[in-house]
Formats: sequence, structure tokens, C-alpha cells
Amino acid sequence: MKRKTGLLVMLAMIAFVILAISPVLAQTDPLPSWNDGPAKKAIIDFVQVTTDKSNPKFIPPEARIATFDQDGTTWVEQPMYTQVMYCLERVPTVVKAKPELAKVEPFKTVMSGNREAMAKLTMPDLEKILAATLTGMTVQEFGTQVKDWLATAKHPRFKRPYTELVYQPMLEVMKLFRDNGYKTYFVTGGGQDFVRVYSEQVYGVPPEQVVGTAGGTQFSYNKAGKPILTKVPKLLLNDDKAGKPEGIHLVIGRRPVAAFGNSIGDKQMLEYTQAGDGARLMMLVHHDDATREYAYGPKSKVGTFTEALMAEAKKKGWTVISMKNDWKSIFVFEQ
Amino acid sequence: MKRKTGLLVMLAMIAFVILAISPVLAQTDPLPSWNDGPAKKAIIDFVQVTTDKSNPKFIPPEARIATFDQDGTTWVEQPMYTQVMYCLERVPTVVKAKPELAKVEPFKTVMSGNREAMAKLTMPDLEKILAATLTGMTVQEFGTQVKDWLATAKHPRFKRPYTELVYQPMLEVMKLFRDNGYKTYFVTGGGQDFVRVYSEQVYGVPPEQVVGTAGGTQFSYNKAGKPILTKVPKLLLNDDKAGKPEGIHLVIGRRPVAAFGNSIGDKQMLEYTQAGDGARLMMLVHHDDATREYAYGPKSKVGTFTEALMAEAKKKGWTVISMKNDWKSIFVFEQ
Repeated sequence: MKRKTGLLVMLAMIAFVILAISPVLAQTDPLPSWNDGPAKKAIIDFVQVTTDKSNPKFIPPEARIATFDQDGTTWVEQPMYTQVMYCLERVPTVVKAKPELAKVEPFKTVMSGNREAMAKLTMPDLEKILAATLTGMTVQEFGTQVKDWLATAKHPRFKRPYTELVYQPMLEVMKLFRDNGYKTYFVTGGGQDFVRVYSEQVYGVPPEQVVGTAGGTQFSYNKAGKPILTKVPKLLLNDDKAGKPEGIHLVIGRRPVAAFGNSIGDKQMLEYTQAGDGARLMMLVHHDDATREYAYGPKSKVGTFTEALMAEAKKKGWTVISMKNDWKSIFVFEQ
Repeated sequence: MKRKTGLLVMLAMIAFVILAISPVLAQTDPLPSWNDGPAKKAIIDFVQVTTDKSNPKFIPPEARIATFDQDGTTWVEQPMYTQVMYCLERVPTVVKAKPELAKVEPFKTVMSGNREAMAKLTMPDLEKILAATLTGMTVQEFGTQVKDWLATAKHPRFKRPYTELVYQPMLEVMKLFRDNGYKTYFVTGGGQDFVRVYSEQVYGVPPEQVVGTAGGTQFSYNKAGKPILTKVPKLLLNDDKAGKPEGIHLVIGRRPVAAFGNSIGDKQMLEYTQAGDGARLMMLVHHDDATREYAYGPKSKVGTFTEALMAEAKKKGWTVISMKNDWKSIFVFEQ
């Protein structure tokens, strides 16, 4: 009997150690870059109640869809959208391949490097630049071009690759959602093909979970008879404002239960998310930290987080995330 | 020492039982509705080599994308596409809501029930019917309308709900792929919103993995101020022929490694799949079983599996699945 007792004691000790450790494991902070406050609490509470089978707010795994805007919500969008920077910096290569463009506007202005003149480019000018830099190549060639640029391009203020200017607190949110059975989607005004190039590596979001502004492609055969898809200047989806819920329906086909944005471009996505039944989480990142990042909220009178949006957030119970107060650290490279 | 030895013997016995059982488990036929032959072998071999880390043909989990046509590949498409049947049978309800349509063509002809006259409807006629039955409602309303119809509609020959006219062998293939870390996608010429209504329940394919012919939606607010998405008659993607790889790029953003079809509408999808590097699997279902289902392959001179497609399959090494010879049973309800 002695041996048996010894075994039981050992088992009891192992059980005790497991029981003693598990609350510690459970209590590990999933959002270490967040200061305690209503924003952090809203996220953690939402994930907790929607994944607890005994909670009336439980959401079945297949319906766990969380959507995230990208520019300004998960990475820096100032002083210019990264993709616009890409298009401008791509112009010299395009002109090299088609030298006749050097004498034609708006390429002439971009080639001059005159920032003042470039700032005055009109929307039709910009569209010509987008068409010249984002279409005409196969989808594979485009991926390579973007990848090559990202490997060397640097942000003018932070002097770092754009893919390092990602908000650590938002990476933690995305991971927390995924660890709890959520699918995390980008729903971005940026180009779908552009964001797909780095979304998996940088954010853990696979290409098929990127909804973005999408141009058409055309199937054909190259000279070797190989089937190719060429990017063509035909807008299929303008994934901004009302286009965000429309894009969500086109690509996902389900209503999200959680949505994160930072601007008037995200308003309709948050409204559409909120209009569903059951637990919902709507959040807006407020850029109010000029020291560590930028400040361009309602008070600055510039940017796209308008006073009207702030009023709407208050009225509808959307949680506003203060970069200054809610985020202990901002960038991945601060870790 | 005796007790310890006893324990070891017991452990050894448990280990032996596990070892004895596991090959049996591994050898359970994942495709029991398939007869042995080149088609079954091609599927099983492909899944085996692409999921074996030690095999040079190993495919990492994130790249495991398998695409399936629906009509004629995973369920019956004769005598008419199910969705066309839906649209025609929906006409009386549409006319009831808008009685003025009863006197207008093509609605007048559909309401007459005269099959001969209906068979002569032109493409523009059909487009009017599609627009009247597939657009103008919210995406939620449309889902309910389709669900209600599927609950009562019966196939003219088999006298069963359409959702039971699903090919058991293909369900087994889809499950085999999913059980091995593949994402199974529909890439269908049918309506994306239509197929999404039942794809999860019938095939285990969630809405976000349905690529189909897609019309636009429009975001707005209803009278109560609630945000809604209304289906509008604007074609975004004609997911057939060249539109299939284009749709795959739009929604998935990756090249599939396996693709299943049954007609000339699937040719480009199979070519696009084959054009990638590494292991590839391209298969075509050949309807050659008039007794159990239908026969409309090259020999019948009707249908969309043309002689040219058969020649191409041979030339390119695509595997043709003979319903007659490769499938032990055809329908789910035969189980």
C-alpha cells in the first residue's frame, strides 16, 4: 500500500502545481503595451464574454470576424499614405522604361523632385500616377516591385522601413483576437494587392483576409503560352466609407462583430458592424500624440478624425483609443 | 519491484495496443465512395505528398488552397442551373408584389408556365428576370428568400431538395482536403450570394470561401436609420472562364494548388492552377452516367465538356473523373 500512497501523493502534488500555475498563465496580460483604462478593458472584456460558452454574449467560432482599417489604425499614415509614397517613388523606374513620359505631366513634376509643385498635383494627376505605377504588370511582377521597394524605402521622419512603423498595441489586439478563434481581416482604403504583399509577414493576416481598394485583372497568355493575370486600370471596389461594408460583403460575406478604424473613412464599417445582433465592439484610434507619433484629431482641425466623428463615437458608444494615454509604447521597434 | 514491473508491463501493453491500432486508423479509406483507379489515386497521392514534410512536394499549410466549381462538379446542374430554377420560380412572388409586371415580357411568359415558350427566352429576357429576382432587396432579405425556397423546392427528376443532390464522392474529397490543412473554396459561375446561403451547411464551406459571380451592393440607411446593404444590378465579377482566375485573385489573392471543374467554364481556372510551381492537381468531372445522373460529355455533343476540353485535359495531364466508373455511389442520400 505504501507505494500506491506514494504515487497518489505525487499525482496530487503534480495536480497542485498545475492548478497553482494555471491562474498565473491565465492572468498573463495579453495587451502589455496598453495602459489600463476603458479602451483596454473594452477589448479584453469583449473577447472574454464572446468566447465564454456560458455567457449569453457568446459568439460561435465561425462568426468571429474582426475587421481592421490599416492606414492610421495599425500603422503610420502621415505625412502621406505609404502606398502614395510608393507610387511617387516608383515614377523614376516607370519613366526609365518609357522615357517619353519624362516630358509629360504629371510625371515631369514628380521627376523634378520639387515638393511644392508635387503637393499641388490634382486628383486626375494622381490617378495618372496610380495607373502608371499600379497597373500594366502581372500580379506576380507587382508583388516583387512592392517587396523590393519595402526592403529599402524609409519613412521621412522615423528613418525606418515602413513595415516597422506598425503599432505594437494593435498587433497585440490582432493576436489576442486570433488566439481566441477570431479571423482578423484588413478592410483598407489602400490597394488590396499592395497590402497583401506584406500583411502576412507584418501582421499575421494572410492575403485572403485582406479587403482593399481593388482594381481589375485580366487573364491572358504570355508569349510562352503561360496563363497570366495583368493588373488593369479598372476600379472594382473603392474600399472607403460606404465602400467598406460593400467590400466586406463582397469578400467576406458576413457582418463583422468587431471593427477598428481611425477616420471618417471607417464610419460606415463601424455602423454596419454595430447594426448586427449580439455583442459588438467598435473602436477608433485617435492620433493625439504629436511627440511619439502625430496629432491630427478633431482639435488639430486637420486629418480625417473630425469633430463630427468624435461626436458620433460618443453618441453611438464607440470606444475612442487615445494613443497618448492608452498606449504604453507605440512602435514595434520600441520593444 | 514487482509492482513497478507490473506497471511497466501495463504501459507496454497500452503502447502495443496504440501501435497496433494506429496503422488501421491511418488506413481508413478517406474516399469510400470512390472506386480504386487513377482518379482516386491521384487525389490521395496529391494530399499525401503535399502534407509530408519530408517530401520535396510538400506545400506549407498557408498555401494549401483548393478550388471547386459547384454546378456539375459538386452538385447536379441538369436540366438547368439550380439558381436559374430559383429565379424562374421566384417570378410569381415578384409579380405579386408588382402586379404591373404580369403584362410585361418576359414575366408574362414565365407566369404562363408554358415551358416551350420559356425555353425560347433570350439572354436579355433572362437578364431581366435575374435583375428582378436577385436585386432590389437587402442582402439579409435575399438570404431568407433563398433559404425559404431551398426548404421546399424539389428537383424535377429526383424529386428531392436541391441540397440533397450533392455528390457524395466530392464531399469526401473536400473533407479530405480540409482534414489535411487545406482551405476549400468554391469558385463558381453561380451567384456568390446565392451559394453562400447553403455552402456552409451543405459543403462545410464558409461564406468567406465562396467566390462567385458577384453583383454590387449599395450601402444606405433604411427609414429607421439602420445601415443596410441593398443588392444592385451592377456586375462586379462574371466568375466564369477567364473570370475564374480573376475572381480567385480578387477574393483569395493566392494561386490555388488544386482545382476541380467539369466544363469549359473551368478551363482557365485549371490552367492558372497548373501554371504555379510545385505540386499541382487539376481534375475534371465527366458526366457519363445517364442512368444514375446525366451524360452530357463530348460524346453526347451537348453540354459544356467539349471534345476540345477532353483533348486539352489529355494534353495537359489533367485527370478526368468518370462518374460512371470512378464513383461507387453518387448522391449523399444513397448513403
